[in-house]
Amino acid sequence: MRILSSFVEKGSRFYKDHPRYSKLLVVAAVSGGSLLAYSSSNSSHHVTGDSESKKKRIVVLGTGWGATSYLKNLDLASYDVQVVAPRNYFAFTPLLPSVTCGTVEARSIVEPIRNIIKRRGASATFWEAECFKIDAKNKKVHCRPVQKSESKDKEEIIMDYDYLIVAVGARVNTFNTPGVEENCHFLKEVEDAQRIRRSVIDCFEKASLPNISEEEKKKHLHFVVVGGGPTGVEFAAELHDFVKENLSKLYPKVKDFVKITLLEAGDHILTMFDKRITAFAEEKFKRDVIDLKTGSMVVEVTNNAIRTKERSSGEVSSVPYGMAVWSTGIGTRPLISEFMQQIGQTTRRVLATDEWLRVQGSDCIYALGDCASINQRRIMEDIAVIFSKADKDNSGKLTVKQFQDVITDICERYPQVKLYLKNKKLKGVSDLLKDSEGKDNSTELDIEKFKSALSQVDSEMKMLPATGQVAAQEGVYLANCFNQMAEREKNPVGPPRIRGEGRHRFHPFRYKHLGQFAPLGGEQTAAQLPGDWVSIGHSSQWLWYSVYASKQVSWRTRTMVVSDWMRRFIFGRDSSRI
Amino acid sequence: MRILSSFVEKGSRFYKDHPRYSKLLVVAAVSGGSLLAYSSSNSSHHVTGDSESKKKRIVVLGTGWGATSYLKNLDLASYDVQVVAPRNYFAFTPLLPSVTCGTVEARSIVEPIRNIIKRRGASATFWEAECFKIDAKNKKVHCRPVQKSESKDKEEIIMDYDYLIVAVGARVNTFNTPGVEENCHFLKEVEDAQRIRRSVIDCFEKASLPNISEEEKKKHLHFVVVGGGPTGVEFAAELHDFVKENLSKLYPKVKDFVKITLLEAGDHILTMFDKRITAFAEEKFKRDVIDLKTGSMVVEVTNNAIRTKERSSGEVSSVPYGMAVWSTGIGTRPLISEFMQQIGQTTRRVLATDEWLRVQGSDCIYALGDCASINQRRIMEDIAVIFSKADKDNSGKLTVKQFQDVITDICERYPQVKLYLKNKKLKGVSDLLKDSEGKDNSTELDIEKFKSALSQVDSEMKMLPATGQVAAQEGVYLANCFNQMAEREKNPVGPPRIRGEGRHRFHPFRYKHLGQFAPLGGEQTAAQLPGDWVSIGHSSQWLWYSVYASKQVSWRTRTMVVSDWMRRFIFGRDSSRI
Repeated sequence: MRILSSFVEKGSRFYKDHPRYSKLLVVAAVSGGSLLAYSSSNSSHHVTGDSESKKKRIVVLGTGWGATSYLKNLDLASYDVQVVAPRNYFAFTPLLPSVTCGTVEARSIVEPIRNIIKRRGASATFWEAECFKIDAKNKKVHCRPVQKSESKDKEEIIMDYDYLIVAVGARVNTFNTPGVEENCHFLKEVEDAQRIRRSVIDCFEKASLPNISEEEKKKHLHFVVVGGGPTGVEFAAELHDFVKENLSKLYPKVKDFVKITLLEAGDHILTMFDKRITAFAEEKFKRDVIDLKTGSMVVEVTNNAIRTKERSSGEVSSVPYGMAVWSTGIGTRPLISEFMQQIGQTTRRVLATDEWLRVQGSDCIYALGDCASINQRRIMEDIAVIFSKADKDNSGKLTVKQFQDVITDICERYPQVKLYLKNKKLKGVSDLLKDSEGKDNSTELDIEKFKSALSQVDSEMKMLPATGQVAAQEGVYLANCFNQMAEREKNPVGPPRIRGEGRHRFHPFRYKHLGQFAPLGGEQTAAQLPGDWVSIGHSSQWLWYSVYASKQVSWRTRTMVVSDWMRRFIFGRDSSRI
Repeated sequence: MRILSSFVEKGSRFYKDHPRYSKLLVVAAVSGGSLLAYSSSNSSHHVTGDSESKKKRIVVLGTGWGATSYLKNLDLASYDVQVVAPRNYFAFTPLLPSVTCGTVEARSIVEPIRNIIKRRGASATFWEAECFKIDAKNKKVHCRPVQKSESKDKEEIIMDYDYLIVAVGARVNTFNTPGVEENCHFLKEVEDAQRIRRSVIDCFEKASLPNISEEEKKKHLHFVVVGGGPTGVEFAAELHDFVKENLSKLYPKVKDFVKITLLEAGDHILTMFDKRITAFAEEKFKRDVIDLKTGSMVVEVTNNAIRTKERSSGEVSSVPYGMAVWSTGIGTRPLISEFMQQIGQTTRRVLATDEWLRVQGSDCIYALGDCASINQRRIMEDIAVIFSKADKDNSGKLTVKQFQDVITDICERYPQVKLYLKNKKLKGVSDLLKDSEGKDNSTELDIEKFKSALSQVDSEMKMLPATGQVAAQEGVYLANCFNQMAEREKNPVGPPRIRGEGRHRFHPFRYKHLGQFAPLGGEQTAAQLPGDWVSIGHSSQWLWYSVYASKQVSWRTRTMVVSDWMRRFIFGRDSSRI
């Protein structure tokens, strides 16, 4: 035993002494957040910067994908870093659907943010509080502890910042459908997944009671998923597997009453994926007897029925249900709506940032993840300035040669140009000009011809999807910018400023899509990888296992997730109602 | 991957096909239970026995140690078995203190009761409902679903029974101390342990906020444990380890404010153990700077302070606290109090049963575990009958020979006789008679001398402790009685009936104490094994690991508990607030 004990101790020491083994690339979905609550506090506590150290203070709001990957990459020693979030852990959200059915345990996908900071070997302060107001004018954020306590503790905390990183994520969008908040489960947070798990078992236990009619059994065991996006589809598939592999054996008397319905307002599910994947998923769900209803909009949810409206016929029908999961769209957190009003971004759903992730209209505030989107600059807005910059001899005409001289800078600043060339299968800028003219011999363009050559380019601008993968890459990018801030002030590397002199300090943010998975149950997964490479089936499931294991935020969560998978293979999923 | 996948599948099939590997002896503490709630239902559903099968119907109340070990050993095919409990799983309660600090995960110590039944390969029905009334006269129990639902579902379920097994456990005894229910955590159920875990992290997060004075930090980080029994002591030790090994590293700024206080009304902790263990534990707690206050009674708990009274001086003092765990005494569940009133057992704390676990005064109702205790028959109550049965020649005098003829039966019926002989170091019954006479030559006794010889014997009667070990043994015993019921009607094996003819059908229940552990933290455990063998230290900790691993109710929980321990060695305990 002595030997075993010493072995274990050594192992333990190894992992503790080699934190670099747990530094791994982070890729995937959705961040934590701040909720607004009306402040009635009468006292406040002011936290000012560490004046002695003279380090610039960065306040980070959130512990989701964006904030965590930012913290994992930031040079913590160069700044006074304060992290504020209502959740003291990072959650590996792509595995949330697995948590709903116990394929993976909740605790296996979370890692305390303090651990993540500690492993960096530097200091940053974490506060479990929610920010409810950003005061951009005075460079302050107003926060409030999340825990219910005596009123005295609930006093406001006001923090100064030099830079503010907003990464509070989004909330579920109910599209103001009546009854959704009260009666549906969401699937954004770990607690949501735990609640869904309990609720599934509850439905089976309720249906098993002796005083329940067949009608009621059917109702209790009718599981409705609203939203045919990756999360909704994965949850429906997980639930189907849970019922088929585990629950039907433990609840043999009621298993025939189980029904899973997936409601999607659009014509197809998984529309962000390749059509082959959509078709395969729809086929598989048909085989699995998951009732897929496309073109069906939810108009109301009561405590025991869901009313839907067929988009084609306008027919409204009502169907009783036992449990409903609402998994469609992302909505704006109150903190963000209020801040957007403050800075005049009133017509938007999320914060607009420039290509350097800086919130438009606020110099020291950066935003990333689901609470923000990059407001890509339209080339047509700057077309006159571009023309005059390129037309160095002020001739009022642009030669192909002159245009070629500036095209690299233009492509960096307006990535839609590159996309346009690629999609139109044009080889270069001369092709673009040819294309607009339709003939080969034009060597010079005036401003009108130049405009018309580029007129279609802006149509290629795309919003980045609200995934963890985007947020994580933004976090890495922003941390690198901050790490090089001092150096790049002197030695900028970005594209030249179109309106103004000199260059931008940094290259603008570029998202690199690494692919996306859609687990479909029964050990089958659809994968869409870069270059339109589509793979569906058991092999992708193994790819999914490998990728999700490797992307875990720590060795602890990696070990736990893998052992959860093994446990599920061997013993099945647990159905205790805890 | 094909190979790995097939290996895993095979492994999975192996465990599923060999359920006997998961049949293991169950030893240890505390059962689930029924809570009374006032019934306002206006409809009811009547569940009658399966009249066609003509099997006798057994209704089992509870899924704790007693009920589960009964179900694991009962010949389910011979009876129509219905299990009713508000909890659809069995919990390995001795590991609850480990769950409070994440040394072991909650889900690792629970097993769905449906799984346990299914592995027996026979059928028994489980209903997730709470029994709120036992109607002994009409052989019915009244139950109510546990889940909140529309009123229609909450209708009463009335079940007929031929035999009723009451194993609903106990609840915490607050001794009516004001404020305990509202402000203290208990440690009886899995949910309690999970709440405590979150609460510990909450206290650390609260104390880490910037708007908190030193005074408040001290308050938030003052953890109070009330009750120096094994559970309270183990929790205090676990918490100390959690703070020392994990939290102090993640919360370095507040670690010096942490204080753990253990309040015990008696003079010592762990009084059910050997004095050496008590002394060692008290010493260890002193070294660990756990503030042990004996002779200190809690008189009131408010939301931020605990008022205690020194038993010696009568001095009352008040101390602020962050979190308090109440772990002292066991109280009666409302269902049991009401039933005791019904059958006239009004002066007792738990149900009285005879030595065959039958509730006194109710022929077909059996009770086991924490909700019952065996009302051992006093020999002095039956002394005259015993004398006349032994005095076969009706001489009014008893020879030693005559006495020796009946002594085996007497020892079986009144086990206190054997204990008395053992404790007095007497070799046999002739010694007992000698002892009473004080001289050697008495060969005959009259009734008065016989009385005086046995007068001290009843003082050896002892109540069984309220542990899972007792409940589990009772469950096994009772299941065996039921399995042999038909056979033993014809061929009884018990002791002769003192008042009446013939023999009892079964041997009375005998508890065999297999020892008890008291984990003291820092990988040290005290173990008290049969024969007053005491072992303290690291070796007992390893014994504890082995015993608790082997006693798990299924291979799934065994694997999970062991892997939780390994995870803790390697990665420490998780401190995410979920």
